[in-house]
Amino acid sequence: MSNAKWIWHYGEFEIYHNMKVHSRRRDYEAEYPPFWQLATVYPRINFLKQFSNEEPFTFKVHATASGSVVLDNRRYPLGSDIVAHPGAHLIKIELLNAQGLSSAYIDSDGLVTDESWVSNNAVDDNTPVGCTPAFTTLKHNPTEFPFEYRDISPVSSEDIDSGILYDFGKETFGPVKVSAPSDEKFVIRFGESHNEALDPVEAVIRYTLEGKKEYEIPAVAFRYIFVSSPSVKINAKYEYLPVKRVGSFSCDDERINKIWDVCAYTFELNTREFYFDGIKRDRWVWGGDAYQSYMIDSYLYGDNETTKRTLLSLLGKPPYHQHINTIVDYSLLTIIGAYEYYFRSGDREFLEKIKSRLMELMDFTVSRLDDDGFICERKGDWIFIDWSDMDKSGPICAEQILLWQAYKCMNEICGCGYENRAAELQNKIWDKFWDAEKHAFIDCASSGSRHVTRHANIFAILFDFVDEEKAEEIAKHVLDNPEITKITTPYFELYELMAMGKTGRYDYILDLINSYWGGMIDLGATTIWEEFDPNMSGEEHYAMYGSAYSKSLCHAWGSGPVYLLARYCLGVYPTAPGYETYEIKPQKLFENFKGSVPIPGNRIINVECVDGEITSYISSDIH
Amino acid sequence: MSNAKWIWHYGEFEIYHNMKVHSRRRDYEAEYPPFWQLATVYPRINFLKQFSNEEPFTFKVHATASGSVVLDNRRYPLGSDIVAHPGAHLIKIELLNAQGLSSAYIDSDGLVTDESWVSNNAVDDNTPVGCTPAFTTLKHNPTEFPFEYRDISPVSSEDIDSGILYDFGKETFGPVKVSAPSDEKFVIRFGESHNEALDPVEAVIRYTLEGKKEYEIPAVAFRYIFVSSPSVKINAKYEYLPVKRVGSFSCDDERINKIWDVCAYTFELNTREFYFDGIKRDRWVWGGDAYQSYMIDSYLYGDNETTKRTLLSLLGKPPYHQHINTIVDYSLLTIIGAYEYYFRSGDREFLEKIKSRLMELMDFTVSRLDDDGFICERKGDWIFIDWSDMDKSGPICAEQILLWQAYKCMNEICGCGYENRAAELQNKIWDKFWDAEKHAFIDCASSGSRHVTRHANIFAILFDFVDEEKAEEIAKHVLDNPEITKITTPYFELYELMAMGKTGRYDYILDLINSYWGGMIDLGATTIWEEFDPNMSGEEHYAMYGSAYSKSLCHAWGSGPVYLLARYCLGVYPTAPGYETYEIKPQKLFENFKGSVPIPGNRIINVECVDGEITSYISSDIH
Repeated sequence: MSNAKWIWHYGEFEIYHNMKVHSRRRDYEAEYPPFWQLATVYPRINFLKQFSNEEPFTFKVHATASGSVVLDNRRYPLGSDIVAHPGAHLIKIELLNAQGLSSAYIDSDGLVTDESWVSNNAVDDNTPVGCTPAFTTLKHNPTEFPFEYRDISPVSSEDIDSGILYDFGKETFGPVKVSAPSDEKFVIRFGESHNEALDPVEAVIRYTLEGKKEYEIPAVAFRYIFVSSPSVKINAKYEYLPVKRVGSFSCDDERINKIWDVCAYTFELNTREFYFDGIKRDRWVWGGDAYQSYMIDSYLYGDNETTKRTLLSLLGKPPYHQHINTIVDYSLLTIIGAYEYYFRSGDREFLEKIKSRLMELMDFTVSRLDDDGFICERKGDWIFIDWSDMDKSGPICAEQILLWQAYKCMNEICGCGYENRAAELQNKIWDKFWDAEKHAFIDCASSGSRHVTRHANIFAILFDFVDEEKAEEIAKHVLDNPEITKITTPYFELYELMAMGKTGRYDYILDLINSYWGGMIDLGATTIWEEFDPNMSGEEHYAMYGSAYSKSLCHAWGSGPVYLLARYCLGVYPTAPGYETYEIKPQKLFENFKGSVPIPGNRIINVECVDGEITSYISSDIH
Repeated sequence: MSNAKWIWHYGEFEIYHNMKVHSRRRDYEAEYPPFWQLATVYPRINFLKQFSNEEPFTFKVHATASGSVVLDNRRYPLGSDIVAHPGAHLIKIELLNAQGLSSAYIDSDGLVTDESWVSNNAVDDNTPVGCTPAFTTLKHNPTEFPFEYRDISPVSSEDIDSGILYDFGKETFGPVKVSAPSDEKFVIRFGESHNEALDPVEAVIRYTLEGKKEYEIPAVAFRYIFVSSPSVKINAKYEYLPVKRVGSFSCDDERINKIWDVCAYTFELNTREFYFDGIKRDRWVWGGDAYQSYMIDSYLYGDNETTKRTLLSLLGKPPYHQHINTIVDYSLLTIIGAYEYYFRSGDREFLEKIKSRLMELMDFTVSRLDDDGFICERKGDWIFIDWSDMDKSGPICAEQILLWQAYKCMNEICGCGYENRAAELQNKIWDKFWDAEKHAFIDCASSGSRHVTRHANIFAILFDFVDEEKAEEIAKHVLDNPEITKITTPYFELYELMAMGKTGRYDYILDLINSYWGGMIDLGATTIWEEFDPNMSGEEHYAMYGSAYSKSLCHAWGSGPVYLLARYCLGVYPTAPGYETYEIKPQKLFENFKGSVPIPGNRIINVECVDGEITSYISSDIH
């Protein structure tokens, strides 16, 4: 079998699909582009290879672009038969695509396209090409992302409002074929909740169709589908990426098992071209959301491919004129996430490939600090941290701790004096934000309100900004303190529980998984939501951003328990890059539990606790 | 009549069409992309306008992209009916086009898209949009460049090699429809010369066709068309831009009149989306070629639009990683050309719009100087100057004089300390390159050969690098000196004759027009060639770059006499920006001559010499 692969200039595949992915949002029948600028592909790319052969052979060059082939200074059309006579050769494929991805493919006896080729953008030096095992034959097409499909059917249907409401039993995602009498004008609405599908005004994803017999609705999220006429037929497929779940967890608490399953399924639905935020509304790639997905990937798939694609799509192309998603914390979490990805995977090669991008992103961030060296809100910046009330009247503490952690990661990545920067900043953060009376970091020092929320304090513990003793002091006065406003997003709840884990509060983790994640499932959730406030009731749960159903009911950042149970119950984590050394420190949160964690080298750490007796062993992941 | 226009983010139209233009080269049936990187459009663009209305009205937004319309914070699909109730409004059109130009169009009673809108790229501040009078109705499409067409027919045909050779009488350009029996495989070849069309191996533009009844060959250059079978029928059109020739020249020397006509026609053929180098081979946009086209434009059309489009396409998008066309002199000539365009047109508004690009291009150039502050050849640079043998073993003098002139232009454009840079450089150039014994600037000081060519010396006179006395000294010892290798391109011949004009050598100008340009016409040229060496003979004239017919026989830089006769015979030129003051200093090179020169404000300077009596007057150009 040939090892030919489609090749592209490194990073271009991800940038191209990032554009496609971000072209698809549709709210209330209007296309909704992201509010930030997107990186775009280079129109001109050259692929090069030196080779030699003893026997003559003939080959053809295929490409997803216009251009030509220059073999030993002679130019040939793409697709033509080219003869390589015996000897040493230089081949250059010169491509131009003003509208998309330039990629090339050769599969012949004497020459194939593969990772041994280099490419350039007609300006910079040659670098090794990009390619993936997903595109190995001529009929593959790197401009189309390769998903798999299977048929899905509704579990029930209901005649309602002169139409039909189909219930697929759980949240799902895929394209829907619709057939109807061609003279019939009708409406099809997709609902994550029952009422959303029935709401003609507030349903987010809906189509008014007319004039054809067959329609193809591009892949869309739904549990419920409503069609306004009984003569309309639907045929849905599940669209997914066939990534293997190598990680697992189960225990003698069926509720916890159910939560783990729902979280893993939520994550599966969001594992696509990149790690999405959620599958209904934006389907955009967000740096902070993705940061948590890298963590979960490492315990669920150990696959790395989606993590690397996501980092490349988020990093786009320097020079940077805007923070990732415009959010300062999301730039920082992308830097931190890239380093942590390396620490878990040992994939130094990838880190080297994105190093210059990370350095430019850090430079951009530094160019916008205030005179004290703090992150402040510059024009076009969004200081997010979390959907939570927080004093943001000036530089906020949570953002500075992220900056400090990003400096430390940059120091590991490239040195460049970031250690000194980190040390300086650490002192300034203590001076400005620590409140000894409150035993807490305050949100912000500018207003004088000295308000405390959990966020900065969680980051301080999480990233070892404070020592163990201080962490305990903060945990006691902030995290354990019911007076301090509770976290309402699974996003920050994961960070909080990681901080709890660091201070040994394992029961708290388990309680929260039960009450918070379990709380959603008690309300009928089949996937985890973007936000959850247990004090709300009924339809209130589905509203967000001022709209009745704008909350995402399948949000990647809801998958935290997959991480938490592996990290704190199985107790598996690396202590040196790539699991060269690691710890297995299970906590007996259940009398019986077992699970597995994928680690580099296609190995699996298996941990089992039977009647309180713990065993662990390493096995191989046979692909 | 409505004043609605299609609008785009300023500069994007030109960048988009620059990509399209550079995707079209085809040599020997292979697509041939340029060897430099192309700027590309922003995927995300927002268009905004504040307006208020007393009466309600309904409007639709059309776009060449996906996206939606946000009116007063409510989102509507593109193409939907939107009602503007009485009051004050903010409308924002949010567009995303991962594959091309984002442009928008509204034509309604209460609101139209026009130059009063602003736009942004989702990062930078709002700037006024781009638009042109060419796109004013809904059926116009800014993604297609609007040419006009008229039928053209061969003047003769000849049965030859079992096929037919058509002669259109002169060089022309346009699309060709071809019809043939569908089972017939045949060849169609386009020739600028008779023999090129007949040459199966060396003809540059040719197609092997089969399997259809009708074919459409995209616009192509030719005088001759050969079809290999008599059953093949062709139908050609002339494709052109309807730019009005406001400038004119005629005299009592019919040979000169013929030369002027051929030059003006050569220029017309190259006046397209941008000023092309030539219409057969590259059809690319080159900074130095274009620099001369701006000069000719000002005397032939006074239209400015093609000049502005060309400057925007060449400047592309900062940051710069590569010289324009990779050629250092072409970056410098683009800066000089932009300033000279301003000086002739008075179009300060345009200069302000491109100022930041010019500054970044100059910064890029400066970042690559050597320790002496000279232009040297850095990786990826092409030190061109001219197709001529020249000592390029180190920094060359001609390039430094261009740098000096570019500094002076930058000083006029933005100040920024460029006057001091120019003064410093001037001294260094004298020290390093002036040879008092040879009364000349040498090519290069590195090899020790102290070789003299005309080029640096021409630039020194042309750009007033030397005073009048020195200019005369150089002219006498270099330009008048037959020992110094002659210029072989019309490109540098124009510069040489401008230098001759500066030193009052008008007869020399006339002689050269007669012998050099007239020399090509004597050989049957219907348009002016890329290069002409009177010492060559026969088919030798058509060869270049190692191929029998690769020389362009219709090259924009051949149009110099249009400039020369207006500038030196009519004697019209501005002495302050925008012809606020100007000179009319005719030279009686003929007993009788007359001509006109377009100047800003839709005015025309008319100069006439009847039996040696000169009159001149200003008239209005009625559009």
